[in-house]
Amino acid sequence: MLADIITIGDEILYGQIVDTNSAWLGTELAKIGIKVRQITSISDNTEHILKTLDDVKTQSDVILITGGLGPTKDDLTKHTLCKYFNTQLILDAGSLQHVTELFRSRGRELTELNRQQALLPANCKPVPNILGTAPGMWFEEEGKIFVSMPGVPFEMKRIMLDTVLPELQKRSNKTQIVHRVIQTVGLGESFLADRIADWEEALPPNIKLAYLPSLSGVRLRLTGRATSATNLEEQMDAQVQKLQSLIPEHIFALGEVPLEEALGRLLKEKGFTIATAESCTGGHLAHKLTSIACSSEYFMGSVLAYHNHVKINQLGVSADDLAQYGAVSEEVVSQMAANVRKLLNTDIGVATSGIAGPSGGTPEKPVGTIWVAYADAEKTVAKKIFYNKERLLNIEYTTYTALNLVRQQIMGV
Amino acid sequence: MLADIITIGDEILYGQIVDTNSAWLGTELAKIGIKVRQITSISDNTEHILKTLDDVKTQSDVILITGGLGPTKDDLTKHTLCKYFNTQLILDAGSLQHVTELFRSRGRELTELNRQQALLPANCKPVPNILGTAPGMWFEEEGKIFVSMPGVPFEMKRIMLDTVLPELQKRSNKTQIVHRVIQTVGLGESFLADRIADWEEALPPNIKLAYLPSLSGVRLRLTGRATSATNLEEQMDAQVQKLQSLIPEHIFALGEVPLEEALGRLLKEKGFTIATAESCTGGHLAHKLTSIACSSEYFMGSVLAYHNHVKINQLGVSADDLAQYGAVSEEVVSQMAANVRKLLNTDIGVATSGIAGPSGGTPEKPVGTIWVAYADAEKTVAKKIFYNKERLLNIEYTTYTALNLVRQQIMGV
Repeated sequence: MLADIITIGDEILYGQIVDTNSAWLGTELAKIGIKVRQITSISDNTEHILKTLDDVKTQSDVILITGGLGPTKDDLTKHTLCKYFNTQLILDAGSLQHVTELFRSRGRELTELNRQQALLPANCKPVPNILGTAPGMWFEEEGKIFVSMPGVPFEMKRIMLDTVLPELQKRSNKTQIVHRVIQTVGLGESFLADRIADWEEALPPNIKLAYLPSLSGVRLRLTGRATSATNLEEQMDAQVQKLQSLIPEHIFALGEVPLEEALGRLLKEKGFTIATAESCTGGHLAHKLTSIACSSEYFMGSVLAYHNHVKINQLGVSADDLAQYGAVSEEVVSQMAANVRKLLNTDIGVATSGIAGPSGGTPEKPVGTIWVAYADAEKTVAKKIFYNKERLLNIEYTTYTALNLVRQQIMGV
Repeated sequence: MLADIITIGDEILYGQIVDTNSAWLGTELAKIGIKVRQITSISDNTEHILKTLDDVKTQSDVILITGGLGPTKDDLTKHTLCKYFNTQLILDAGSLQHVTELFRSRGRELTELNRQQALLPANCKPVPNILGTAPGMWFEEEGKIFVSMPGVPFEMKRIMLDTVLPELQKRSNKTQIVHRVIQTVGLGESFLADRIADWEEALPPNIKLAYLPSLSGVRLRLTGRATSATNLEEQMDAQVQKLQSLIPEHIFALGEVPLEEALGRLLKEKGFTIATAESCTGGHLAHKLTSIACSSEYFMGSVLAYHNHVKINQLGVSADDLAQYGAVSEEVVSQMAANVRKLLNTDIGVATSGIAGPSGGTPEKPVGTIWVAYADAEKTVAKKIFYNKERLLNIEYTTYTALNLVRQQIMGV
């Protein structure tokens, strides 16, 4: 079963809002084995809506339409659907009762504009929208299903969850789509592809692999299709296991777990506490660690030493070493990691020092020169990286490199 | 001039990533008077890509294509474009040189997969991608422009800003759309709407107002349309001036300037230095301040005191006050702000302490109870807020409240 999503509204085309509805719909439909064929965003324009409906109807089984159902003049969806199905608007008693009660409960008079929300195309089955005034509409024609819903995310989601998804699930055939996400770190996309080329080549035809690179690593997504769900799950698990045996040191999690959460779990499991000493990341490393709930169980605090006097006075970095090697050096970043660990009395200290740019570079140390360091009671390990995109990207990349350094040191990989 | 956007990639249809590229493209194209006609998201499928190109080519002048340019097997865009334009891949010397240097600068060998990134359709003009390995491609056929770019947001944006937008602007006709963004903070959307209702009512018909609320405040966007650009600019400026006179204390910037940058400018202008003492924001406040280039001119450093022993030992917060009032209290947050200022020898100290959740709340201090404080040589000011959505949103809202508190105290508003 294939679905098309049509989102209607100028605000999406002007970029004034980001369309998050479509991603949510894609996720929910995949769960019941319906694949989204295409997402089409168009303006509130009758001709364009009609043409799009004509186009997608020949390609998909289900057409989900969001937006253009407001009470104002620029909202054309309902009238256009009347044209498309060659029908007219009639008053729906149930919808009128709902909108009347909604206004009564808010202590407000029902206006004529709002009353018109209960006018629906004669051939549709109204779909209740308990959170808003514009009901959803369910149409069937020539074996195809059309559902029109408001674009307001929480109204659309409630309509989908309460009515549309259960109804579609009943009707979809039993073709299942199963996803597995494998989170990797420490290998660029092409190096990763080289390492797992034989495995990828040998994947059965019903399983596809996608590489989804980001600053924190490359997410691998396996997508399997089959008519019997049980076999597919086993088949997928077997492939994931094979993959894990190929690159164990680079896989930090299965599923949608960010690196900072995987590291948090590891710290908790080992009973380790951690502190950060940050220069170029300016708090971003601590922010990532503390973005995870209950991080206070292992994260104690940080000294952000942007200015050298803070490195010397608060972190006890040697003023001589600062003068001799500079702030962006193995010596200084190692002292930062080791000293913050002692200062805040933690098991692990992690430090960053680099030139995030856009200015501050020198011929010997251009923008993008970055040191990260790890320290525990036994050892201090420093690592140099070079990464020069834009300031914020450099900061984020440094953060993920530091998180991965801690993960590697704890795991001994 | 009309544009179509085509985004290619299964991950969008499965809802695994939200398509933010299209909104950014819509915004940037509108600035140069190009309207987006349709956004179409499709999978990595040759036939579907070909059909979509055929469809949109008859409707738009410019077709912007993102995604499917990675080095791996699932990326089909380049090969499909060859089919579409009935041409073949040839090695582009400039692109090969760029990708070779990129790898050399990272100290890594160029793999065969990466070398293939320099193979481009024979009929395209390569568009440099200085941030990545896959070059953009510019095609012209039968008066239509096709541009293919990577889907990685920062690479796509850089290619657009450096090359594609300037080139399109040269070619677009003279119907102008002018935007003005007015950044406000400290008034919720409906209160703001009440305050400026008369002004909004009196706007001329060619100027539209949009409210774009976010965690840091409400961005107001005026969109004006006219055939003569010069008059429109003046007309827009006059409306912005009227608005500024209505809510001077709530406008922190004109244009796309985030609050942390506006505050940075203010600090630089006044010659003030600043330090943060953070508990619940865990580095996010410092991160926002240091996300701005040259923030080292005014930002000295921070003590992130997540655990109480760090509040006592590093920040000198009274252990008695901590025991009596708790960490989330006016007393403690005020001491944090005042003490970090003295400790790091800055003009201003700013502190946060609150319960970001999801756990850690009590009946007296539920999740979302947050204190922020400002301190300078003369005074210490603390403010209590209550904000309880999700952990990350609570952290971000606290950060913006703290930034605005500093801004208000410096400006005396």
